[in-house]
Amino acid sequence: MKTLEHLIQTLTRLPGIGRKTAQRIAFYLLRQPDTSQELAQAILEAKARLHLCPVCFSLAEEALCPVCAQPDRDRSTVCVVEEPADVLTLEQSGQHHGTYHCLGGVLAPMDNIGPDELHIKELLARIPKEGIREVIIATNPTVEGEATAVYLARQLKATGIRITRIARGLPVGSDLDLADSETITRAFEGRKEL
Amino acid sequence: MKTLEHLIQTLTRLPGIGRKTAQRIAFYLLRQPDTSQELAQAILEAKARLHLCPVCFSLAEEALCPVCAQPDRDRSTVCVVEEPADVLTLEQSGQHHGTYHCLGGVLAPMDNIGPDELHIKELLARIPKEGIREVIIATNPTVEGEATAVYLARQLKATGIRITRIARGLPVGSDLDLADSETITRAFEGRKEL
Repeated sequence: MKTLEHLIQTLTRLPGIGRKTAQRIAFYLLRQPDTSQELAQAILEAKARLHLCPVCFSLAEEALCPVCAQPDRDRSTVCVVEEPADVLTLEQSGQHHGTYHCLGGVLAPMDNIGPDELHIKELLARIPKEGIREVIIATNPTVEGEATAVYLARQLKATGIRITRIARGLPVGSDLDLADSETITRAFEGRKEL
Repeated sequence: MKTLEHLIQTLTRLPGIGRKTAQRIAFYLLRQPDTSQELAQAILEAKARLHLCPVCFSLAEEALCPVCAQPDRDRSTVCVVEEPADVLTLEQSGQHHGTYHCLGGVLAPMDNIGPDELHIKELLARIPKEGIREVIIATNPTVEGEATAVYLARQLKATGIRITRIARGLPVGSDLDLADSETITRAFEGRKEL
């Protein structure tokens, strides 16, 4: 049955989904026509309605992302993260009252991702424009995340503003995405000058 | 962002997907527009094209399911399983050369699933019609699966045909879906008279 096999194969492309889980999900979807209709629609709607925020490159449904659109955010402090998903994680912890800036990834020379592939120049342009006085670098505590943080700190040095890195209360080698709010709180509190 | 939250919520309904995994999948789908388009389409196509086989109640894309449509299957031996997913698992092991019959579940009085909710009378009708001489009961080795096997064996007794149960080489309390082909092979070889 090509249709079933194609569905299973497509599901295995998703992160964290192996062959057995994909098979279970496929049969679940066939047993639950309402859920499968809703899921297909939710995927297509998300694809159609969501885009990158022109200011911070996080996800946005309106003209600006929910954080950039909020009038009471502290615009003098910007938190730099790798991906839009990280903004969601940090917002859930409620620790950061400033704005965000998504790099769109990390420096990865092996994958041909250099500084020009990340939204670094857009960050540099935001600093004088928005009167930013502190940049908190919250890239993941992985080798690539650390390297990107060091590179970014060097690029920002000339601006004379405060540059900080969230404390590695996060277990090194893991992913920001998996951290709980407590760990994120400690990481914000323990941030150090670079 | 309602659209994103709706997508995450819909994903958490799938079996084996928690909040964090749903979040990862949602962001992955937004980064990979091709995969998300293909997944939405695969879900809708599977929903539109797949139906239950009128003979064995397994999944079918054509008039009959792939097993019932195969001319060289041994029609005198039928293997009874709970769900269409089990047919896929058993077919991957290549041990069974007969046909299948999907009950569509197990007896579960607490959930109001009695014999009439399962495809038992259709199995009884197939026995004289197809000249079936052996029924191999391959329901899961769980409490409900065992109870259903015992009930089914009693119902089939009057027909005078051979009734067997796959050996519980499968670890009791687990699910057929998770077994490897070797375990399934041993379970078929060690089947016993009921």
